[in-house]
Amino acid sequence: MKGRVKDLSLAEQGRLKLEWAMKHMPVLMRLREEGRDKRPLAGLRIGAVLHVTKETGVLMMALKDSGAEEVVLAASNPLSTQDDVAAALVEYGIRVYAWRGQSSEEYYWCIRQVAESRPDIVLDDGGDLHAMLHSEYKKLAGEITGGTEETTTGVIRLKSLEREGLLLYPVVAVNNAYTKFLFDNRYGTGQSTFDGIMRATNILVAGKNVVVAGYGWVGKGIALRARGLGARRVIVTEVDPIRALEAVFDGFEVMPMSEAAGIGDIFVTATGNKAVIRREHFEKMKDGAILANAGHFNVEVWIPDLESLSVRKRVIRENVTEYTLRDGRKLYLLAEGRLVNLVAAEGHPSEVMDMSFANQYLAVKYLHENKGRLEKKVYNPPRELDEMVARLKLETMGIKIDELTPEQAEYLKSWSYGT
Amino acid sequence: MKGRVKDLSLAEQGRLKLEWAMKHMPVLMRLREEGRDKRPLAGLRIGAVLHVTKETGVLMMALKDSGAEEVVLAASNPLSTQDDVAAALVEYGIRVYAWRGQSSEEYYWCIRQVAESRPDIVLDDGGDLHAMLHSEYKKLAGEITGGTEETTTGVIRLKSLEREGLLLYPVVAVNNAYTKFLFDNRYGTGQSTFDGIMRATNILVAGKNVVVAGYGWVGKGIALRARGLGARRVIVTEVDPIRALEAVFDGFEVMPMSEAAGIGDIFVTATGNKAVIRREHFEKMKDGAILANAGHFNVEVWIPDLESLSVRKRVIRENVTEYTLRDGRKLYLLAEGRLVNLVAAEGHPSEVMDMSFANQYLAVKYLHENKGRLEKKVYNPPRELDEMVARLKLETMGIKIDELTPEQAEYLKSWSYGT
Amino acid sequence: MKGRVKDLSLAEQGRLKLEWAMKHMPVLMRLREEGRDKRPLAGLRIGAVLHVTKETGVLMMALKDSGAEEVVLAASNPLSTQDDVAAALVEYGIRVYAWRGQSSEEYYWCIRQVAESRPDIVLDDGGDLHAMLHSEYKKLAGEITGGTEETTTGVIRLKSLEREGLLLYPVVAVNNAYTKFLFDNRYGTGQSTFDGIMRATNILVAGKNVVVAGYGWVGKGIALRARGLGARRVIVTEVDPIRALEAVFDGFEVMPMSEAAGIGDIFVTATGNKAVIRREHFEKMKDGAILANAGHFNVEVWIPDLESLSVRKRVIRENVTEYTLRDGRKLYLLAEGRLVNLVAAEGHPSEVMDMSFANQYLAVKYLHENKGRLEKKVYNPPRELDEMVARLKLETMGIKIDELTPEQAEYLKSWSYGT
Amino acid sequence: MKGRVKDLSLAEQGRLKLEWAMKHMPVLMRLREEGRDKRPLAGLRIGAVLHVTKETGVLMMALKDSGAEEVVLAASNPLSTQDDVAAALVEYGIRVYAWRGQSSEEYYWCIRQVAESRPDIVLDDGGDLHAMLHSEYKKLAGEITGGTEETTTGVIRLKSLEREGLLLYPVVAVNNAYTKFLFDNRYGTGQSTFDGIMRATNILVAGKNVVVAGYGWVGKGIALRARGLGARRVIVTEVDPIRALEAVFDGFEVMPMSEAAGIGDIFVTATGNKAVIRREHFEKMKDGAILANAGHFNVEVWIPDLESLSVRKRVIRENVTEYTLRDGRKLYLLAEGRLVNLVAAEGHPSEVMDMSFANQYLAVKYLHENKGRLEKKVYNPPRELDEMVARLKLETMGIKIDELTPEQAEYLKSWSYGT
Repeated sequence: MKGRVKDLSLAEQGRLKLEWAMKHMPVLMRLREEGRDKRPLAGLRIGAVLHVTKETGVLMMALKDSGAEEVVLAASNPLSTQDDVAAALVEYGIRVYAWRGQSSEEYYWCIRQVAESRPDIVLDDGGDLHAMLHSEYKKLAGEITGGTEETTTGVIRLKSLEREGLLLYPVVAVNNAYTKFLFDNRYGTGQSTFDGIMRATNILVAGKNVVVAGYGWVGKGIALRARGLGARRVIVTEVDPIRALEAVFDGFEVMPMSEAAGIGDIFVTATGNKAVIRREHFEKMKDGAILANAGHFNVEVWIPDLESLSVRKRVIRENVTEYTLRDGRKLYLLAEGRLVNLVAAEGHPSEVMDMSFANQYLAVKYLHENKGRLEKKVYNPPRELDEMVARLKLETMGIKIDELTPEQAEYLKSWSYGT
Repeated sequence: MKGRVKDLSLAEQGRLKLEWAMKHMPVLMRLREEGRDKRPLAGLRIGAVLHVTKETGVLMMALKDSGAEEVVLAASNPLSTQDDVAAALVEYGIRVYAWRGQSSEEYYWCIRQVAESRPDIVLDDGGDLHAMLHSEYKKLAGEITGGTEETTTGVIRLKSLEREGLLLYPVVAVNNAYTKFLFDNRYGTGQSTFDGIMRATNILVAGKNVVVAGYGWVGKGIALRARGLGARRVIVTEVDPIRALEAVFDGFEVMPMSEAAGIGDIFVTATGNKAVIRREHFEKMKDGAILANAGHFNVEVWIPDLESLSVRKRVIRENVTEYTLRDGRKLYLLAEGRLVNLVAAEGHPSEVMDMSFANQYLAVKYLHENKGRLEKKVYNPPRELDEMVARLKLETMGIKIDELTPEQAEYLKSWSYGT
Repeated sequence: MKGRVKDLSLAEQGRLKLEWAMKHMPVLMRLREEGRDKRPLAGLRIGAVLHVTKETGVLMMALKDSGAEEVVLAASNPLSTQDDVAAALVEYGIRVYAWRGQSSEEYYWCIRQVAESRPDIVLDDGGDLHAMLHSEYKKLAGEITGGTEETTTGVIRLKSLEREGLLLYPVVAVNNAYTKFLFDNRYGTGQSTFDGIMRATNILVAGKNVVVAGYGWVGKGIALRARGLGARRVIVTEVDPIRALEAVFDGFEVMPMSEAAGIGDIFVTATGNKAVIRREHFEKMKDGAILANAGHFNVEVWIPDLESLSVRKRVIRENVTEYTLRDGRKLYLLAEGRLVNLVAAEGHPSEVMDMSFANQYLAVKYLHENKGRLEKKVYNPPRELDEMVARLKLETMGIKIDELTPEQAEYLKSWSYGT
Repeated sequence: MKGRVKDLSLAEQGRLKLEWAMKHMPVLMRLREEGRDKRPLAGLRIGAVLHVTKETGVLMMALKDSGAEEVVLAASNPLSTQDDVAAALVEYGIRVYAWRGQSSEEYYWCIRQVAESRPDIVLDDGGDLHAMLHSEYKKLAGEITGGTEETTTGVIRLKSLEREGLLLYPVVAVNNAYTKFLFDNRYGTGQSTFDGIMRATNILVAGKNVVVAGYGWVGKGIALRARGLGARRVIVTEVDPIRALEAVFDGFEVMPMSEAAGIGDIFVTATGNKAVIRREHFEKMKDGAILANAGHFNVEVWIPDLESLSVRKRVIRENVTEYTLRDGRKLYLLAEGRLVNLVAAEGHPSEVMDMSFANQYLAVKYLHENKGRLEKKVYNPPRELDEMVARLKLETMGIKIDELTPEQAEYLKSWSYGT
């Protein structure tokens, strides 16, 4: 059984996409090569719920080529699947359950297939697979060697399970690898969010007022790129005073959303919270304001409020829904409030996913190698894996760095004086 | 006769695009409104060779609504036509000769239709219409009230005709309107070039070495956005020492292309010259280098050299042609070396074209109002039109500026002392 | 007679300053070397009114070493003279009339000495020497071969004389050399203005709201550096709609000063006009606001209004005057409203003046070589001199640029088709 | 006994400086006001070794005004004392042992006075006081309630003591307060380092190649400002692969110092290690290269190598030492390799120290309030103090932030599902 995808005849097109991704994922490609040689995952069953993109495809292939007995993949978002890649992966021998435009029911059905495939190791993006395993499949979950989690959102969910003593297997929070969260969240989402906005709208960023909700890693990247694309005012909203202060000193304006609502031309949410933009904010917005979300769930722009305020709703461009409010103002919601970089563009560039997925790959290997030695906790990725990813990336970019001289190493140690 | 387009049934989709463009072209919309009222172009025959995009569509509609008897439009680039917009324009009563993917023969046939429509006023982008009128249709050309030209390239061609005393009608070099060339060339092309590159390749700009050939207005915009998107090194190549020096002090590296060739990950040409990247450069490039052009003609990246160096050529992604060289290195040419922002993305954002086309509209009106009073020369747009566009743009953005107090105006005048 | 300076015993310290400047003025040093060889200015009498800084010193030495019979120098600003440099120049054989802290009377007396020295060629910065020659010394002025002018302000004054037919000798507007106005106004004033502000106040720019009045070349440089130093909001005020629009698309906020007054933490004027910040603005300012001027005259921040609003005034730090308003708010005026970069710091860095003064040097040579052949008009510097400066600068920085291939030169010419 | 300073008659000038600092340290001023009211430090003896600047002065006054019985202060750097501030503090009742230009012997004598003053709580910057207490004054050290440490360097030294079980009192690593290390290290040192370089040299940063050794918080700030001031190439050297990679993706070049040595015009070290620039690097440098240090100790630019390579050495400007090498090249060392921002400029702007010292103040209070309850360990500042500083700073800047709605708070909690 090879899973369920939209159309197997798209495989050839998918193969070209995978080839392109491989060209831009040199770190993962090097790990895959080694894996082919040494088969470190021989016999493993792997279940993954990830965005089914060309980059995920390369990871799946690397896992399989490293000896995994079975790799089962479902989509972590109903709208983000690249159907041609899904087809090509099936052809490559991956069991894929994913197609673009799933209903909510279909979405969970697919994740269920992964859960029921009896994986030894599970990879997740957002935590829906972990959640399902910890509610509906507790017994299966108990037999799992370990899991990984790709997102901040998912890690928060897992930490909460851990705190309550309910976590059923050790999890490596891949998101906490510095080479993951920094590059993926800041540079990846920063660029791809605007890529999504530009593809969806073709508007000029220069001269616009951009409001960024949240100044975590993702928000930082978005604010940086807004500035880099020439935005007139870049306004940050935050609830955390330290982050707010950092935004101020990074050269951005900070104010409450209630004030920013009337100023922004483009709004991007990246908080991890819900209803960050809601009725009271829609009411103040300028005609023509554009709303996009870069957070994991489609709850940051609160659509129920938008719907209830509107007298008309239509799709005016692909991924642009026009809401006409009672007073005639029009607001434009991108990608139905879902992750704009994944829905309206192609998600993170391959170079970014190269590092995230090299971390995923190494985490899988680490969990397997340490089977039985880890507690049922959420682990940060070991520092040496993180450094390995960084070193490989620099190497593949042709960049050399300095090394400590023996005298310098000595000097650093010599600070343990006082004896 | 309504011209020739690909498929009239695309008109509805085209209408939505036009609606979206109107939302982002407030200056032109205000001129159109006025035009509807006062019909300043009543009875005029207008011929235009422009990129057939949604923004051009709005200009065509504004001209028609201002009283023009007939508006005939052909494409200024064989690959840049939006077929749905073309269809919607036909429906609106514009005579359109344009479809995406014309052969060279078809391309000139369409321009010929415009020439033969006996226009009073002609609008051109690149100078192919003007060139044809001055070679094959000299007699018709002699009856033309005046023309406009949108690009630097076209203006150079026309100035050369003027110098030789061969210009057959007055031309307003719309490109020389400050509100055109600054915004269109710098901000418009700056953003849309990277939009095109990102859509075509989905690569991450951060961390890459970007080489920009040419530091004119377009090159400046591209270098600025490369920096803004996080490029590691932004290298400019130039032949003009003053521009080169400006690039240096703007914080960019400057070196000859022969040196930059071995460093760049992404190359963008914007010089207006040919063979800016050629055999000697291809030979030094890194495997995987990406080649894009933002100049008017597809001659800047010299394709004959690339072809002759290659053993294999295939389309690996839409708008990405992979050339495999003898030594195995692969180079990636975007959009077949044509304007990457028009072919791989949607050209300039509407906000930018709003100003360019407001200038076009005002230039047409100006030529008409001054019929018979202008010499057969290339004119810069009158400063007051330029300021009018700027004022309208600021107004529609809700931005107020300062005014001189009477004392200040006096002070500025008082510098005429010495009597 | 060797002029009048503060203290000749400062000469040794001045020589070190000149040596430092020479190290950073490679273009002028190369011209000086050539001058020593060929003595192109042999026998000339040169009169100059310039800021008496180390860089001006290097220019004076280059002129003298190129054969000038006498070089007479006065200060173009009563507060900007470096007394040690003045002393060193006297020692070198320049006649200098300048000391820091001149009264208005002394200031004009010094300029008068230059006028009365019967110069063949005059150099001016701001136009006070030209003005004096055209009012009090018309007869002497009639015998002058030609003059140069360094600033925008001065050029405006001279153009006004030209328009009225009152100009008594040809003037090269050195300010209009691209290698002068771009680098000097944008990069030079941009950095040195903040250098002056930081030395005067030691405040942190990051997190501050900076208001820049005027978006000419100087204002552009200041706004750019404000952003580069991390300012939270950079607000531009303008009276020209086109410049205002450019500021907007460059990523700055634009609003009237009446609105900006209540927002700014730091205000910098660069308009060339008077009373740009006046009573109505002081009244709205925040406690602690800092006021600096980067325009030629100390009239942009309108001090009479500030004085009349204040109940107390004291110098709280060198170059910082604290005005306490009736309501207790305190405003801080830097450098008594004079050019903050010259008074509170050291004026333009030598590298910038290298280009400005290489243009000055070449303009003097040009006026001399073309004696009798020029009309009594304000001339732009010939393009070839400008390019020569740029080429020399690039060379001395070790930067190579591209050259047109014969085919490319041909291609550019081939655009003259149609015959 | 009132300590030992240079000249008590400088007190008035020092008072003005303190007044100016107070104007820019609103957070500390608010804490001081509260302290005056509630006297939380009543009866305490406080010993401090800090840079004796106006900002430190405000902290000392706040401690005293909060009830401290005695406050004793010595300099943490022999060259950084502001003698007028020292005098004003003596007048205010602080015991100060500090003057600019101490010999090494004098420097340690002064710190000894602090140690021997039998302090209850000690504040240190760099760890020299802690080191002395842990070697020469172990008995006194045993009676200390607790200490604070301002720098990364000092914290490393203390952690090493802690690891070996030798720490004699609890220490709050103030440096680890986010509102300290982020703002102080990144924004403060970033700006003030260039302030120091500009004051010392008056060179133009635009167009220069700047090499930054180390990409920790300090290096990040310096690289950012180098870019913001228009540097042509900003090159980072690092030994840590993750930091190196971050620099690359932040848009900087990364290479080993051995390669960067031949490219840089300006070098700034910020690594915390020794001999980061040494013989092999000096040998490759360009004539005229400028060397500055922003790290705590003057060991990063390795002066013994520079001395041994040179045939001549002289001070060419204040804080600029010219070394002439055998082959005639000249290298310029700023501030004798000491902290360039403190020696050549005025150290951090007051706004930055406002946050650092608010953290110091709160740490002192915290240590006092928790006397006897803390272990002999190095503590991070409690998160709530950090947030308090951030909130106060935002408030005093007039900036409001968002607050979670009850629904949002609920939503964040709701992620603990699965039960």
